[in-house]
Amino acid sequence: MKFASRMECLKDKALLNAMELTETADMISFSAGFPSPETYPVEQIKESFIQVLDHEGKEALSYCSTSGYGKLREIIAGRMRDKFGLDYGIDEVVITSGSQQALDMSSMLFINKGDVVLFETPSYLGAVNALRAYEAELVALPTDREGLVMDSLKQALKQYGDRVKLIYVIPDFQNPTGRSWSQERRKEFIKFISSYDIPVIEDAAYSELSFEEKLEKPLSYYDKKGQVVYVGTFSKTFCPGLRVAWLCARANLMESYLLLKNAADLSSSAIAQRQMAHYLTHNDLDAHIRWITGLYKQRRDRMMEVIEREFPKEAHYVVPGGGLFIWLELPENKDSRELLRRALAEKVAFIPGGSFYPSGIKNNELRLNFSNMSLEDIDKGMTILGRLTREYLAE
Amino acid sequence: MKFASRMECLKDKALLNAMELTETADMISFSAGFPSPETYPVEQIKESFIQVLDHEGKEALSYCSTSGYGKLREIIAGRMRDKFGLDYGIDEVVITSGSQQALDMSSMLFINKGDVVLFETPSYLGAVNALRAYEAELVALPTDREGLVMDSLKQALKQYGDRVKLIYVIPDFQNPTGRSWSQERRKEFIKFISSYDIPVIEDAAYSELSFEEKLEKPLSYYDKKGQVVYVGTFSKTFCPGLRVAWLCARANLMESYLLLKNAADLSSSAIAQRQMAHYLTHNDLDAHIRWITGLYKQRRDRMMEVIEREFPKEAHYVVPGGGLFIWLELPENKDSRELLRRALAEKVAFIPGGSFYPSGIKNNELRLNFSNMSLEDIDKGMTILGRLTREYLAE
Repeated sequence: MKFASRMECLKDKALLNAMELTETADMISFSAGFPSPETYPVEQIKESFIQVLDHEGKEALSYCSTSGYGKLREIIAGRMRDKFGLDYGIDEVVITSGSQQALDMSSMLFINKGDVVLFETPSYLGAVNALRAYEAELVALPTDREGLVMDSLKQALKQYGDRVKLIYVIPDFQNPTGRSWSQERRKEFIKFISSYDIPVIEDAAYSELSFEEKLEKPLSYYDKKGQVVYVGTFSKTFCPGLRVAWLCARANLMESYLLLKNAADLSSSAIAQRQMAHYLTHNDLDAHIRWITGLYKQRRDRMMEVIEREFPKEAHYVVPGGGLFIWLELPENKDSRELLRRALAEKVAFIPGGSFYPSGIKNNELRLNFSNMSLEDIDKGMTILGRLTREYLAE
Repeated sequence: MKFASRMECLKDKALLNAMELTETADMISFSAGFPSPETYPVEQIKESFIQVLDHEGKEALSYCSTSGYGKLREIIAGRMRDKFGLDYGIDEVVITSGSQQALDMSSMLFINKGDVVLFETPSYLGAVNALRAYEAELVALPTDREGLVMDSLKQALKQYGDRVKLIYVIPDFQNPTGRSWSQERRKEFIKFISSYDIPVIEDAAYSELSFEEKLEKPLSYYDKKGQVVYVGTFSKTFCPGLRVAWLCARANLMESYLLLKNAADLSSSAIAQRQMAHYLTHNDLDAHIRWITGLYKQRRDRMMEVIEREFPKEAHYVVPGGGLFIWLELPENKDSRELLRRALAEKVAFIPGGSFYPSGIKNNELRLNFSNMSLEDIDKGMTILGRLTREYLAE
């Protein structure tokens, strides 16, 4: 049987494999990309399911409207307003099955075969996969410690012109680098891009996981044109198993997103959405987030300590101000896949950096998750990894 | 901003509207396409959620593997074997977010822009929407009381040749006609199509909702080549709010389906899948299905009675042996949209037949759902509709 040509673009199974890596029981794994399961508020979630099934069981087990449960969309719009100053109305929010679906729908909305998509590099492989499935030409733009390198953006727009149909970025505590765009860079980016008619997908998966009081304003906050599509999720602040995320877009785009959501899966789970709305109404998610970011900050600090102590000076990194990851850079002639091979033999895992470049061209970096391991395991695993790195770099 | 060309194909909002029609409170609506919410086993579902969260809370709130929860896939494979004689192994089953997602993934796997898809007509609009989103050329084949008309299939394959990339059918209690393919036609279809290398999507959404003891064997049962992809769901036998469905395909296709599932939404909800597995382990879904089909059969019978008594002889129909729908055919010069206009004025709703033809070319039919209304409302609503039909046909 003959497959669609898109399947040629989807041969890379790196993400599937990355997920499987974390599943071995006796492994100290720094490869996870999700919050620590010990933080899931299981009892409160159970209570919400009970209340929803007791009082709105029939509605919770029926189809939901395509845009999603109204009350949940209202709560989300309110949270976005309070936390980030965003002014999306309830009809500018659609619930999606994880933020992956929001990325899939965005690719579907904007991408014809051969269109160019600009994105930060390194970047989240799941988004890259969603874009690949629509046969986009992926053009990677470099980042520095302030965010997307503006000169490279300008250069790409000059080079590819009208072929550029979408820009994908993660401005906060980015996956995989853990870095955030500076306020200055955000303003500069929006000011520049507003003279183009190109939609920007702002993936805000990690935005609420800040280790400091103050949250940076999203790109969407500075956007006066309705050009930015904002994607948020409860997968990183709450739990991923419910698959509840959201996409915010202005009315001119939202109508098309709803047609695509309808074609993709009719609607997201009514019961998951109602459970989420009930939890948010009767619990303080912000207090929960303060608790988990406190915990993750401890783990980040411990990881930094061990890196300082055990790793050679040639391994570079930036201390992340939030999120789940530390990004470690080895000298350019070294290959983190080789380091991984040695680490796995000693029951330590991480994700080699090449997995975050669609071209796989750069292999001297590694992504280390600090949120999911106990302080003890961080000590133990990172000490092993430090020794292996020293040995490898000395060769 | 510029949209992908697919959006030109997705302008029809008929399905969105059809769903909204059912939502008015004082309406007697025969427009539903879902099981009757009074049948949802709310208490047992609640018990399953409690047990799952008490004993496997962390796993249930984490990401699931892309293929889905292993135990659920095993139970599904077992049920398909016991009920329909299908021999899919656990690795030949992937859990999808509703069967709509299985149709979306199938379109994605097989359809390039301009490829031809053959499908029964009238047919399920949701599938048509999924196919439209990939810019397929939709070629409608007529059906008779035995199923797909084989001569039209042969003719279409002759006419379109290699451009035909997919065939989509609903052999059991079809949406919208309620009709089923005869065993003879199933065998004839598989025998003929096996000499082509074209995948067949068998949508089995209604297959278990039979009013008789014996279930017809699926197309997939006769397929020795691995050409048929079987799509099943719990949305019609259990409840749609969990969004748990499945797709069965042989290994050569399954690998590609998993890549697409991963790109679409990483994985389906872990907690919904574990709840479903728990329910299936501790309850008798087949007994539940016997109970709801008994209820639906009563309602079908009552609807047939009122149609016999109140409708003019020029309104033709076939008594459905299962499923949710009766399909009523008016004389060719009549328009069911006009009938709907008059019915809505008297607070009675149904779906006009044109909504089930992608071209909208035929407008003298109507789909009547009998599963969701009480006997009393069936009496009342169908008596009104009978009178309106008599008046309209007399004009």
